[in-house]
Amino acid sequence: MKTNPGRFFEDYRLGETIRHATPRTVTTGDVALYTALYGPRFAVQSSDAFAKSIGYPQSPLDDLLTFHVVFGKTVPDISLNALANLGYAEGGFRRPVYPGETLSTVSEVIGLKESSNRQTGVVYVRSTGSDANGETVLSYCRWVLVKKRDPEAKITQEHVPTFAKVVSPADLATALPTLATGSYDFDLAGSPHRFADYVVGEKIDHVDGMTVEEAEHQIATRLFQNTAKVHFDAFATKDTRFGRRLIYGGHVISLARALSFNGLANAFAIAGINAGRHVAPLFAGDTVYAWSEVLETAELPGRSDVGLLRLRTVATKNQPCGAHPDKQGDGYDPSVILDLDYWAFMPR
Amino acid sequence: MKTNPGRFFEDYRLGETIRHATPRTVTTGDVALYTALYGPRFAVQSSDAFAKSIGYPQSPLDDLLTFHVVFGKTVPDISLNALANLGYAEGGFRRPVYPGETLSTVSEVIGLKESSNRQTGVVYVRSTGSDANGETVLSYCRWVLVKKRDPEAKITQEHVPTFAKVVSPADLATALPTLATGSYDFDLAGSPHRFADYVVGEKIDHVDGMTVEEAEHQIATRLFQNTAKVHFDAFATKDTRFGRRLIYGGHVISLARALSFNGLANAFAIAGINAGRHVAPLFAGDTVYAWSEVLETAELPGRSDVGLLRLRTVATKNQPCGAHPDKQGDGYDPSVILDLDYWAFMPR
Amino acid sequence: MKTNPGRFFEDYRLGETIRHATPRTVTTGDVALYTALYGPRFAVQSSDAFAKSIGYPQSPLDDLLTFHVVFGKTVPDISLNALANLGYAEGGFRRPVYPGETLSTVSEVIGLKESSNRQTGVVYVRSTGSDANGETVLSYCRWVLVKKRDPEAKITQEHVPTFAKVVSPADLATALPTLATGSYDFDLAGSPHRFADYVVGEKIDHVDGMTVEEAEHQIATRLFQNTAKVHFDAFATKDTRFGRRLIYGGHVISLARALSFNGLANAFAIAGINAGRHVAPLFAGDTVYAWSEVLETAELPGRSDVGLLRLRTVATKNQPCGAHPDKQGDGYDPSVILDLDYWAFMPR
Repeated sequence: MKTNPGRFFEDYRLGETIRHATPRTVTTGDVALYTALYGPRFAVQSSDAFAKSIGYPQSPLDDLLTFHVVFGKTVPDISLNALANLGYAEGGFRRPVYPGETLSTVSEVIGLKESSNRQTGVVYVRSTGSDANGETVLSYCRWVLVKKRDPEAKITQEHVPTFAKVVSPADLATALPTLATGSYDFDLAGSPHRFADYVVGEKIDHVDGMTVEEAEHQIATRLFQNTAKVHFDAFATKDTRFGRRLIYGGHVISLARALSFNGLANAFAIAGINAGRHVAPLFAGDTVYAWSEVLETAELPGRSDVGLLRLRTVATKNQPCGAHPDKQGDGYDPSVILDLDYWAFMPR
Repeated sequence: MKTNPGRFFEDYRLGETIRHATPRTVTTGDVALYTALYGPRFAVQSSDAFAKSIGYPQSPLDDLLTFHVVFGKTVPDISLNALANLGYAEGGFRRPVYPGETLSTVSEVIGLKESSNRQTGVVYVRSTGSDANGETVLSYCRWVLVKKRDPEAKITQEHVPTFAKVVSPADLATALPTLATGSYDFDLAGSPHRFADYVVGEKIDHVDGMTVEEAEHQIATRLFQNTAKVHFDAFATKDTRFGRRLIYGGHVISLARALSFNGLANAFAIAGINAGRHVAPLFAGDTVYAWSEVLETAELPGRSDVGLLRLRTVATKNQPCGAHPDKQGDGYDPSVILDLDYWAFMPR
Repeated sequence: MKTNPGRFFEDYRLGETIRHATPRTVTTGDVALYTALYGPRFAVQSSDAFAKSIGYPQSPLDDLLTFHVVFGKTVPDISLNALANLGYAEGGFRRPVYPGETLSTVSEVIGLKESSNRQTGVVYVRSTGSDANGETVLSYCRWVLVKKRDPEAKITQEHVPTFAKVVSPADLATALPTLATGSYDFDLAGSPHRFADYVVGEKIDHVDGMTVEEAEHQIATRLFQNTAKVHFDAFATKDTRFGRRLIYGGHVISLARALSFNGLANAFAIAGINAGRHVAPLFAGDTVYAWSEVLETAELPGRSDVGLLRLRTVATKNQPCGAHPDKQGDGYDPSVILDLDYWAFMPR
């Protein structure tokens, strides 16, 4: 058989390393598309001149563009037969990525847990994105619910990994060059608010809403070379539970992040991803809103240029976020679709 | 409050200068998207080889791409609470812009006029787009109808600026390098018609129509980092007068300009914008057509390579332009959506 | 008349050469859009590092991007008044094309045949795409059914050219640099299957489906500066036989080729096009599937690095291809929309 049927749960081995296909050179073409699809306005990623003024050689890629490219490569091997993308943990951006660099991804199988009904199992992987020299640029864990080919297949290896609840700030400093003192222009960046202006517990409604069209999420998801068929095939998905195409969860993350500019304009780089959950699916025609909560603030050892904000950004569909829709009972307010906990750099 | 609520009419001061956020490095990625969104076919902007052959160092950006990027930055400060974009005047392109350059925008408040009902007021600004060295690349005036936060707020400063009806050709020569004599290839440019072939009063139906999809105008408007929520939020706009998303007026300008290639193929660069008015809104699903009238021709002092055509391009929706739908009584034919008066260069 | 009404059948002369307008510099922006619109995953075109490792100076353009750009230029002169795009033959890619190169197109009229009803005629052209130095990068023949302006017009010149049924492999070797021995990484390329693993008669279902949106095919078709109005004008096309916009046939070719990665991951470059037929139209909302058959295998004189597979890729709409829907009686299974016969390189 020459086509890739995707792996089923019993095809994974604990400790196994999978080199994913299709290395990808990222370019200013990808950057333009990312801007056009999500509308980010962070000055560092938008302007080479701004980036240079604070110490970068040029504008780096939006961190989530790097994330999606690294993630996309894992799909044919990890999630082609996945029923759900359950969570993320221990994500760390090691250094900025620039147009012209080539990214590729390797995943290690770090956990396997069969479901009690024996129809499915959870596969835990650590995926590592590297540049053309093999240097890591991004590493993160995710776990997905994968079908078994044969429910009767006996699973001999099981292991549920434990993840750090929060990535240690000390591990995140390399993601950002040291900023040239006093060079960050808060007018051009779009907000006067800096690290010290944010306090733990503060909640920010990002106000704006963004309606998603089928063409938009398909264009984005193909850009990331993510091949999961549920995103693209209206003919096949009309017979599924949802009756239609499902939007790539990463699309929601990027929309929420771009919306968060309104309130977090100086949180221009993501340092790490502590936890993430796609609470509910998004469909074309829905409008995405977001709000954020400051969970924690941290100084970086030896650095007086920036601090870290631990943020929780919650995205909703068809529900503005003035009232901060959130967890509710055992679950969530029905409008919530994403709950993402991450570290972002902010100038001091 | 960390989010930007936008300014209301009483927040502006006459003479005030506003440095807008988010400088933007424009790239060949933006150029590709501009081509894909509007379909322009002007040889100078399409081919580096063609551009070099006539004296450019490489292909410049489409002038309207520059315009939209410069314009987009003003939205969070000028038109977030605007009810209508009333007009443009005194627009001048100072020099070609090339991929790799960084653009930023500053606006000066040059006029303020409260409406008689005291609910709103008109804000007049001169917006100036500059490169990374602060050199002006584009300057134009526009005026918008902005809500008052408090209708009772007393307005002490009022001034209604007067604008030149037509930008003087003498002020526009820098927008174009001197073309190498005899080097312009009319076959490759797509039309044999040059400056002397156009006569004042001539009307040209541009024939073709272009239907606009929601995904298209959203992708374009985000590319320009224009954040006006009416363009993106189907959930909120369903309760507005129009009941749906409104397409960015600049989208219509770019569509009309791209359509005008069929009849004006050698009018490859816009020199100035004399006046412009968005006569009626455009919505997704509508089809845009355009026609143009030659209002005036002008020679450029000291230059025998090119002349200037003063053109009026009228765009319609769902109405082909063979009959040149135009002003009618006190208003316009109901199909008209744009009336734009501008100067364009054409080889002699 | 300053606008281009398009040529009618009686306007063509046998042997005539037409230099098409709008040379086009292709960039990494176009490459990003091509990836986002079709989702190709061939490693050579995706990664500069991979391309360099096997002997290219950098990633070449997807061959079909080159094809569409070269093709698009011919539309205003060849197919503006065409009723149908009847076929392709004798297509050959002469060398890889890289971002930064400028392409232009010339067509020679090689055949003319009036229809028996005298309302239309078939125009046969050989179109040649060249770089800025005039060196050929692609040449192919196509024939289209074109309206007559005046059915009574007398046609004096008629000639029906004969085409090679299959392009000779010996003519195709220049399309690919000699690959560095042992350098091709089959893991990164996404499949272990190489030239010798494919046998004549083998049929491969490419499994995945891709639903097409109006915004997507319009964005693609404008990117290629293809101006055929049937693709863009919903207002005018509502009164046509189909009642709606028709998707550019080349869009189907690119979708089918991108889908074919799943089963043909190492067939990374197209060498020649033997024959092609758009069997039925595609409309927005339809889902495209594809399958391929190996028609022939060929070694290349003097080259041990790669062989040639002659493939026939069949695309369908709204019909998965597990059963290989194919010719049926005098026609085709009603789901079939494309039948393309081409040569592709594959590492040995």
